[in-house]
Amino acid sequence: MRIAINTGGGDAPGLNAAIRAATLAALKRGWEVLGIKNGYGSIYTDEPFITLDEQAVQGITLQGGTILGTANRGNPFEMPYEKEDGEWGTKDVSDQLVNTFKEHEVDALIAIGGDGSMNIASKLIKKGLDIVGVPKTIDNDIYGCDVTLGFDTAISIATEAIDRITTTAESHHRLMVVEVMGRYAGWIALYSGIAASADVVLIPEIPFSYDSIVEKIKEREAKGRHYTMIVVAEGAKEQDGELVTKGKTVGQEVQLGGIADRVANKLSERTGKESRSVVLGHLQRGGSPSTYDRLISLRFGAAAIRCVQEHDFNKLVVLQDNQLKRIPITSIAEKMKSVSLESDTVQTARDIGICLGD
Amino acid sequence: MRIAINTGGGDAPGLNAAIRAATLAALKRGWEVLGIKNGYGSIYTDEPFITLDEQAVQGITLQGGTILGTANRGNPFEMPYEKEDGEWGTKDVSDQLVNTFKEHEVDALIAIGGDGSMNIASKLIKKGLDIVGVPKTIDNDIYGCDVTLGFDTAISIATEAIDRITTTAESHHRLMVVEVMGRYAGWIALYSGIAASADVVLIPEIPFSYDSIVEKIKEREAKGRHYTMIVVAEGAKEQDGELVTKGKTVGQEVQLGGIADRVANKLSERTGKESRSVVLGHLQRGGSPSTYDRLISLRFGAAAIRCVQEHDFNKLVVLQDNQLKRIPITSIAEKMKSVSLESDTVQTARDIGICLGD
Amino acid sequence: MRIAINTGGGDAPGLNAAIRAATLAALKRGWEVLGIKNGYGSIYTDEPFITLDEQAVQGITLQGGTILGTANRGNPFEMPYEKEDGEWGTKDVSDQLVNTFKEHEVDALIAIGGDGSMNIASKLIKKGLDIVGVPKTIDNDIYGCDVTLGFDTAISIATEAIDRITTTAESHHRLMVVEVMGRYAGWIALYSGIAASADVVLIPEIPFSYDSIVEKIKEREAKGRHYTMIVVAEGAKEQDGELVTKGKTVGQEVQLGGIADRVANKLSERTGKESRSVVLGHLQRGGSPSTYDRLISLRFGAAAIRCVQEHDFNKLVVLQDNQLKRIPITSIAEKMKSVSLESDTVQTARDIGICLGD
Amino acid sequence: MRIAINTGGGDAPGLNAAIRAATLAALKRGWEVLGIKNGYGSIYTDEPFITLDEQAVQGITLQGGTILGTANRGNPFEMPYEKEDGEWGTKDVSDQLVNTFKEHEVDALIAIGGDGSMNIASKLIKKGLDIVGVPKTIDNDIYGCDVTLGFDTAISIATEAIDRITTTAESHHRLMVVEVMGRYAGWIALYSGIAASADVVLIPEIPFSYDSIVEKIKEREAKGRHYTMIVVAEGAKEQDGELVTKGKTVGQEVQLGGIADRVANKLSERTGKESRSVVLGHLQRGGSPSTYDRLISLRFGAAAIRCVQEHDFNKLVVLQDNQLKRIPITSIAEKMKSVSLESDTVQTARDIGICLGD
Repeated sequence: MRIAINTGGGDAPGLNAAIRAATLAALKRGWEVLGIKNGYGSIYTDEPFITLDEQAVQGITLQGGTILGTANRGNPFEMPYEKEDGEWGTKDVSDQLVNTFKEHEVDALIAIGGDGSMNIASKLIKKGLDIVGVPKTIDNDIYGCDVTLGFDTAISIATEAIDRITTTAESHHRLMVVEVMGRYAGWIALYSGIAASADVVLIPEIPFSYDSIVEKIKEREAKGRHYTMIVVAEGAKEQDGELVTKGKTVGQEVQLGGIADRVANKLSERTGKESRSVVLGHLQRGGSPSTYDRLISLRFGAAAIRCVQEHDFNKLVVLQDNQLKRIPITSIAEKMKSVSLESDTVQTARDIGICLGD
Repeated sequence: MRIAINTGGGDAPGLNAAIRAATLAALKRGWEVLGIKNGYGSIYTDEPFITLDEQAVQGITLQGGTILGTANRGNPFEMPYEKEDGEWGTKDVSDQLVNTFKEHEVDALIAIGGDGSMNIASKLIKKGLDIVGVPKTIDNDIYGCDVTLGFDTAISIATEAIDRITTTAESHHRLMVVEVMGRYAGWIALYSGIAASADVVLIPEIPFSYDSIVEKIKEREAKGRHYTMIVVAEGAKEQDGELVTKGKTVGQEVQLGGIADRVANKLSERTGKESRSVVLGHLQRGGSPSTYDRLISLRFGAAAIRCVQEHDFNKLVVLQDNQLKRIPITSIAEKMKSVSLESDTVQTARDIGICLGD
Repeated sequence: MRIAINTGGGDAPGLNAAIRAATLAALKRGWEVLGIKNGYGSIYTDEPFITLDEQAVQGITLQGGTILGTANRGNPFEMPYEKEDGEWGTKDVSDQLVNTFKEHEVDALIAIGGDGSMNIASKLIKKGLDIVGVPKTIDNDIYGCDVTLGFDTAISIATEAIDRITTTAESHHRLMVVEVMGRYAGWIALYSGIAASADVVLIPEIPFSYDSIVEKIKEREAKGRHYTMIVVAEGAKEQDGELVTKGKTVGQEVQLGGIADRVANKLSERTGKESRSVVLGHLQRGGSPSTYDRLISLRFGAAAIRCVQEHDFNKLVVLQDNQLKRIPITSIAEKMKSVSLESDTVQTARDIGICLGD
Repeated sequence: MRIAINTGGGDAPGLNAAIRAATLAALKRGWEVLGIKNGYGSIYTDEPFITLDEQAVQGITLQGGTILGTANRGNPFEMPYEKEDGEWGTKDVSDQLVNTFKEHEVDALIAIGGDGSMNIASKLIKKGLDIVGVPKTIDNDIYGCDVTLGFDTAISIATEAIDRITTTAESHHRLMVVEVMGRYAGWIALYSGIAASADVVLIPEIPFSYDSIVEKIKEREAKGRHYTMIVVAEGAKEQDGELVTKGKTVGQEVQLGGIADRVANKLSERTGKESRSVVLGHLQRGGSPSTYDRLISLRFGAAAIRCVQEHDFNKLVVLQDNQLKRIPITSIAEKMKSVSLESDTVQTARDIGICLGD
C-alpha cells in the first residue's frame, strides 16, 4: 500500500502532528508514505513528492506550520497560470493530478485541510481517488466537527494576548479592542473572550449595536472600572448591516481587516474615552501547537490510516460527542458550523456579565 | 436566594474560575453568595464564611489554587479532633454543619470537588441539604465525566516538562523516567506521553513488564536513537503485581512515590545505560489554568447556578458527549473512570509506536 | 519618614514589582508609604493617594500594569484642563503638587518612569522636592541605563511572536513583516530579531534601502528558502529619509504606525512574492513580567529606598556595568541611548547573516 | 581555516544557539566547520566529526540540548575504558586527541563548556591546541563571567515552577520546599526565590539555621499567612555543618539530593504544619532557551569566531561589566563565582523580607 499526504489551505498548529501520526501508523503497517510538496500545485512539477519515513517526521509534533508546505495554488480545478498576454487565468488540471497519482501508484490520499480542501476532495473523489480527510482550521467552523485541529492553540494565543492587553487597559483607563480571526464564525472571539474575562465580545452570529457597548462601558465606569476590554471577530457586523471590513490587497490575496480600528474610533467618539486597537492576525495560526492540539492532531492522523486500512474511503475523520467518528466528506459541503446562540457557552458569557453587543 | 460555595480536596487549576462564574451568575440573579473558608472544617468556627461579591472574584479566573482555601479536615463525617489524651480521633460533625447552613439561611450549596467531595455531598443530601456538584480533579478519573476541571492544565504542564527533559535525554544518551500523577488512572501519563512524543508510557490500567521496555530501548539503539523517554503514572504496576510505591510520611499525610526511581534503576541494571528520574509532583496541580480549563470551569460554575435556579438539586454538572449535562451525584459513588484499552487514544499510542509496557 | 510612589507614562512589565520592593523596603524601615493614584494629575483631587501596606503589595510581582494606575495627564507643568469656551488648554499646577506633598508630609518621592517622567522630576527637584528615580521603558532607550525595567519582557514577547509567525512564513513561502515598538531606538527590533532568527532587521539607527532587502530575499530564494522574516522597528526610516509613519488619531493621542504595511507592500511589488504584516503593538507592554524583569524591578525598587535612607536624592537608580549605580536625574535630560553600530550585538547580527538594510 | 566545535559537560539551554552563531560566523568568513560528536570521547572513533553547514544549524537557536551530543566520557586525560579483568579504569588519550585534530587539519577549537571543560581546555592548550572557550553552565558560577549561557532559562523555569507551587501552598496552608540546582553556588535559588516571592531562600553561601526559618513561619502565621514557600539550593548547608546531601547512584553517576525532603520533614516536626517537597532537577536544564539565553549564546558564539580570526587564542569569551571581553582560559581554573553577601541582590532579598536562613 502506498499513500500520499496533502496539507491544504492556511497553516494551523497541529498539521505536523497529524502528518507524523499518519506516517508512523502507515509505516507500522508496512506501507509507503509520500508527502505532497506545497499542495496540489506541485503535483505536475518534476518533484511533487517527498518520501516520509521515520526520520522525516521525528520531533515535528511540536513544530508549527507544515513540513510539506502549503500553497495558495492548491485548487487543481482552478489552477492559476500566466496566459500568453501576461494576464493570469485558471485552468482545470485535476485529470493531470489523478494521472500523477496513478503513475506514482498512490493507493490513497490523506487530505488534511479545511472546507475548501474538502470541497476539492469531494470533486477528486468523483474522479476516482480514494481519500480520507482530516479537519483543519483554527476557526473551528467546519460542519460536523466538534473541534478542528488548530483551534485550541488559536484560542490559547488569543487568550494570553488579551490577558496582557488587559493590564494596559486597566493601568491607562482605556478602551482596548482586540481583533481575532473568524470571518464567518465567532468561535475564537467567544472562547478567548470568555477565558480572558473580556467585557464585550462581538461575533458574526450576533450583529452588534454600539448603544449596548456604550451602555456596558458606562455601567463599568459607574462601578469605578475605568477600562473596558472588547474582543471582536474580524467578521463581526454592525446591526445596520454595513460591511465594516475593508479589503486590502497584499501580495496576491485580499485580506480582511479594519473592524477593530472602526470600533475603537466609534467608541472613543461616543464615550470620550481613549481607545486602542490590536489586530492579532497571523499570531493566532503559527507556532508550536498546544497540548490539546498535539493530541487531537495525532489522534486524527492515526485514525485516518485506520480508515485506509479498512478501505473506508471518502470519509472525514471527526470528533463528535467526544468520540472519533467518520462522516462522508461530501456531507460538509456548502455548510458551516456557527456558534449556536442557545449553547451553554453563550449562556455562560451572559451569566458572567459579558456584553455580546445585542 | 442565598447560596454557599465549597472547594474540597486537592487544589486544581480552574477552581477560581468556577467560583467566579458561579458567583457572577448568582449575583446576576439577585442572590447572595457565601464562600466557605478552608472547607467544611471551618463551618463551626467563628468565621466560616466570606461574602463573595463582584469585587471578591475580579481577576481570579487566571489565578491558580482557590481563594476559599481547601483543607484536609474537609470531611464532616470524620472530622479529626484532638482527644484529652493528646491522641487524634475523628467524629461526625455533619449535624452541626447542616445546622450552621440553616442558621445562616443557606438555600443551596455548590460543592466543587472530586469523588471524595461527592461522596460527602451524597451523605449531606441525605441529611436534607440541596447541593449541586462541580467535578474537579487533575486526574480526570471521575466517573460520568468526559473531562474534569484541572486536567488540561495538568497535561499541559507535564507535556512541557517532558519536552524539556527530552532534550537532555537526547544530548546525554540517557534513559529518562518522568513520574506524573495518577494513582488509579493513567490519563495524565497517557495524554502527556503521547503529546510529548514519549517512547514508553506506563499506566495503572496496563501492568508493565521490564522485558517489553528493554526491548523498546534496544530497538531504538539499533536505529541510532541512544535515548529513551519513559513516562510513568505514580500508580503504575509491575506485572508481578508487587506494590512498587513506598509510603513516605510528610507532615500529616502519606505520600505515594518511588516508582520513577525504581524503574530508572531497574532499566539501568538491565541495559547498562545511564538513567535519571524526575518526579513532577505538585508542579502539575498549581498555577494559572490553561485556556481550556478556564473555559470549562467557567461553564461548570455558571451551569451549577442554572441548576439551582431550576431547583434541580443533587446533581453533578458534567461534560458528556461534548454537552453539559446533569447526573445524580450519587451515581458516581464507588466508581472510577479508567482509561479504556479500546479507546482510540490507546490505539493512537500504539499506532505511533509508543510502548505501553505490555 | 513618609514616602510617595508615582508611576508615570506608559505601563511596562515590572512596575508592580518595583512598587512592591520599594514598599516592603520602606515598611521594613518603619516608614509610611503612599501611592499616587493615576499619576500627578490626581494630586489635587480629593483622594490623590492610597496607602501602601504589606497587604496592598502582596502577590503583585507577577502582575502586569501598575496597581497605582498611570495617566496621560501626568505632567503637572502642562496639565490639560477644559476652558470656559469648551476648548482644552494646559496650565502649570506644579506648585499645587508641591504643596500637596507638604500638606501630606511626604518626605521623599520615588518617581518610576521614562525620560518624560525624569524631565518632570528634574523640574520638581528645582521646586524643592526630594526625588529618587527608577528607570522604566520597554524601549530600553534611557541614557545612562544598561537596561530598563520592561525591556526583557518586551523582547521575550516579540521573540515568541516572531517564532510563531516564522512557521507560517515558511509554510506559505511568504515575506512576513513584523512591526515592533521603538520610535527612536531599535533595541526591541534588534534583540528580538536576532533571538528569533529573523532574516532582516530594520532599526531607526540604520536608514534602510529596499535594494539590500530584495537582494537578501533573492539570495534566500536561490538557497531554496522561499520565505523571509523581516522585523521592523516602528521608527525605522527609508534611506530617502521620507517620513514613513503616518499619524493616526485614536482617542486623545497620536499613534505612529504603518511602516510594516508599507514595507510589506513595497517588497511584494519588488519581488512578486506574497507578503503579510503584523503589528505587535500593545502586546509588547502588558502582562506578567519575565523573570529578569521581576528581578531588576525588585532590585531597582529596593535600591531607591536605600537612596532615600542615605538622603542621596535627585538620583536615578541605574544598572551600569552590571552594577547598581546612582546618577543625577538631570544627567539624562535631552539625551537618548541609541544602538551603537559598533556594539558586539550589531556585529553578531551581521556575523549570523542578518540583513540590517544598509 | 578549519575549526572544530565541542560541547562538554551537562547540557544547557543556548548550546545550539552558540553552535549556530559560531558556525554561521565561520562560514561567512569562508571557513570550514566540524562538530565533535558526543564530546572528546568520540575523537578516536571512526566518525568523530559531523560537518556543520548552513543547513545543519538552521532553526536550532530555539532547540534545547546540543545537536552535537555531550558525554560523560568527555575528559581525554582520564578517559574511562574497560580493562581485561572487566573492571573500569581511566587512561590519558590526550595525545591521540591532538593528533586527530592534526590529521583532520583542524586549526582551532571552540570549546563550549563549564569549569570542567575549561580545565581540560587549559591542559590541551599546553599540548599545542589553539582554543577559544565559551562559558556554559546553568549554575552561573564560572569565575570571571557576569553570566553564563543557560542561567536565565534555568531561573525562568524555576520561577514559574515556584509560582505554580505557591498557589497550592496557599490553598492548602502548607510549607512547600522547592529544591533547585546549585551544588556550590546559590545563584539559581537566590534569583528564582526573589523573582517568585519566596519567603525563605537557602543557599550554600549562607549555612542556615532551622530556628530562623521557624521564626519566619511563625511570623507569617501571626499575620494570617498560613503557608510558607522555601526555596533551597541542592548544595545548601545546615549551620551544624553536617553533610545533608545523600548520594544516590543512578546509572553510572552519583546524584546529590535529599536536602528538600530533609528540610520539609524537619520543619513539619518543628511547626506541626504539613509540608511537601518538590525537586525540579533536570527540568531546569533542558528545553528551549529564553530570549536572553538565545541572545547571549549567539553573541558568545559569534565573538568566539572573531577571536579565532584575530588569532587571539586560549581565551574565554565572557560578559563583564555588560561588555563582551576575553580572559585567559587558565585564569578561571580552581576558582568559582559565589554569591557575594554584599551584593545588592542579597540586600534586595533582605529588604523585601526574605529569610536567608541566617
